[in-house]
Amino acid sequence: MTEMKKKITVVKIGGTEGVNFSNICENVARLWAEGVALILVHGGSAEANALGTDLNLPPHFITSPSGHVSRYTDLKTMEIFIMAVNGTVNTRLVADLQQKGVNAFGLAGLDGGLIRASRKEAIQSVENGKRRIIRDDYSGKIVSVETSLLQLLLSGGMVPVIAPIALGQNGEPLNVDADRAAAEVAAAMSAETLILLTAVPGLMKKFPDVNTLIRNIERKDLEQMQTYAEGRMKKKVLGAQEALEKGVRNVLIADGSGKDPIDNALAGNCTWIH
Amino acid sequence: MTEMKKKITVVKIGGTEGVNFSNICENVARLWAEGVALILVHGGSAEANALGTDLNLPPHFITSPSGHVSRYTDLKTMEIFIMAVNGTVNTRLVADLQQKGVNAFGLAGLDGGLIRASRKEAIQSVENGKRRIIRDDYSGKIVSVETSLLQLLLSGGMVPVIAPIALGQNGEPLNVDADRAAAEVAAAMSAETLILLTAVPGLMKKFPDVNTLIRNIERKDLEQMQTYAEGRMKKKVLGAQEALEKGVRNVLIADGSGKDPIDNALAGNCTWIH
Repeated sequence: MTEMKKKITVVKIGGTEGVNFSNICENVARLWAEGVALILVHGGSAEANALGTDLNLPPHFITSPSGHVSRYTDLKTMEIFIMAVNGTVNTRLVADLQQKGVNAFGLAGLDGGLIRASRKEAIQSVENGKRRIIRDDYSGKIVSVETSLLQLLLSGGMVPVIAPIALGQNGEPLNVDADRAAAEVAAAMSAETLILLTAVPGLMKKFPDVNTLIRNIERKDLEQMQTYAEGRMKKKVLGAQEALEKGVRNVLIADGSGKDPIDNALAGNCTWIH
Repeated sequence: MTEMKKKITVVKIGGTEGVNFSNICENVARLWAEGVALILVHGGSAEANALGTDLNLPPHFITSPSGHVSRYTDLKTMEIFIMAVNGTVNTRLVADLQQKGVNAFGLAGLDGGLIRASRKEAIQSVENGKRRIIRDDYSGKIVSVETSLLQLLLSGGMVPVIAPIALGQNGEPLNVDADRAAAEVAAAMSAETLILLTAVPGLMKKFPDVNTLIRNIERKDLEQMQTYAEGRMKKKVLGAQEALEKGVRNVLIADGSGKDPIDNALAGNCTWIH
């Protein structure tokens, strides 16, 4: 397995409207042709929200006592999430890459036990100041990543494209956060670099003023930088922290909307955490 | 690769309401535990029809000049098909198998170029006696199956679960007939047995009279037996013929609704074509 010593780059593709799949796939195609070993992890919130709305089941978000906002994933929502994320988004990315000559291979965390998670069996939610216990939520916390499967695909010259649906302890599909999934995959694969592509250029001191972009963060200062993170950015910074703690060298939070977004991030136009 | 000389059984699971996924998965789990090498291929027409109806895009079928009925798959229908088949059905089967202790691995024909097909760029349809050329149909004819991928999964002790979405010559996802896909997979893998599980006990001389079930068909008589096949059964007999011509030893068309449907078919309660 000496060839596997090749440096691996994990790219997380956000599911928000601002991210340009086609530009990302084009950049992936060029890097892949140059021999770079890549693993993609994607989200799909926007697609899941749109499909849910079309099916008269608009998304419902819950707020934890600590102020964390997350998707309420009951069984019906999980079914919609599976259609949108494992069906639509995963297939669209694989097809787009194949059209550009990349031998992409789509899979979910469920497949072959790639990503195992433990279900949060009771979660607290706060609504109108009242606490409520939710027991029918199908989201989970990642516990392991089966690296041999990804090694096999990489050895075969393929680009794994991973949907964030994990395998629960009872074999049930679980919704896991895509940023955290990308961080865990990068850590398990001892990736050199994790790139989180999103709709903004990185972590900003005064969001949304792009002139306040923080370009360089050393690991020791990351905790303190968390104060600048708002909304979804909090989970990205958390994912970055987890990845670095587990041996990933560089985490880049970068803009996924323009041309050559991966090259752009690697050139330093991002928040570089190391 | 000596271990790969193990006899392979390919099971096609119909997407019609009469097929019992849970019973099939239970049977698969027992056989898998006994060391049988299995590959599953599934449909998903019923789920695609239901989702299309929920999204105000009910299915539309077209009739060829020779009287063949098939799904009209324009781009929007293809998107629904992907959600239902690659999203819902594939994930449900993988989760059900994982819950029963089977290390199932879901993939589509698109992934890693597993199943390549050529798109039917212009198809003829007959409506109210008038011929029409349809150019926006995304269905295809299978041209190849990448066996090394399936070998890798089988070598890893996994059960591949395949969604019938193939990779077109321009990298686009194509709808392919699941019976034909199962036949091509069985042929490419030199499977010993192909089992087509459906909502009826097999080919009947006088459909739907189960007392007229044809239990035994020799290959040389198959052409003539085609006259008894109606509707979807025509494609199964065609798939059987293709599989046998390409070296598969046995094709069983059997009832997928009862308990232990695979054991039941192997015990001879089916139409056995050989």
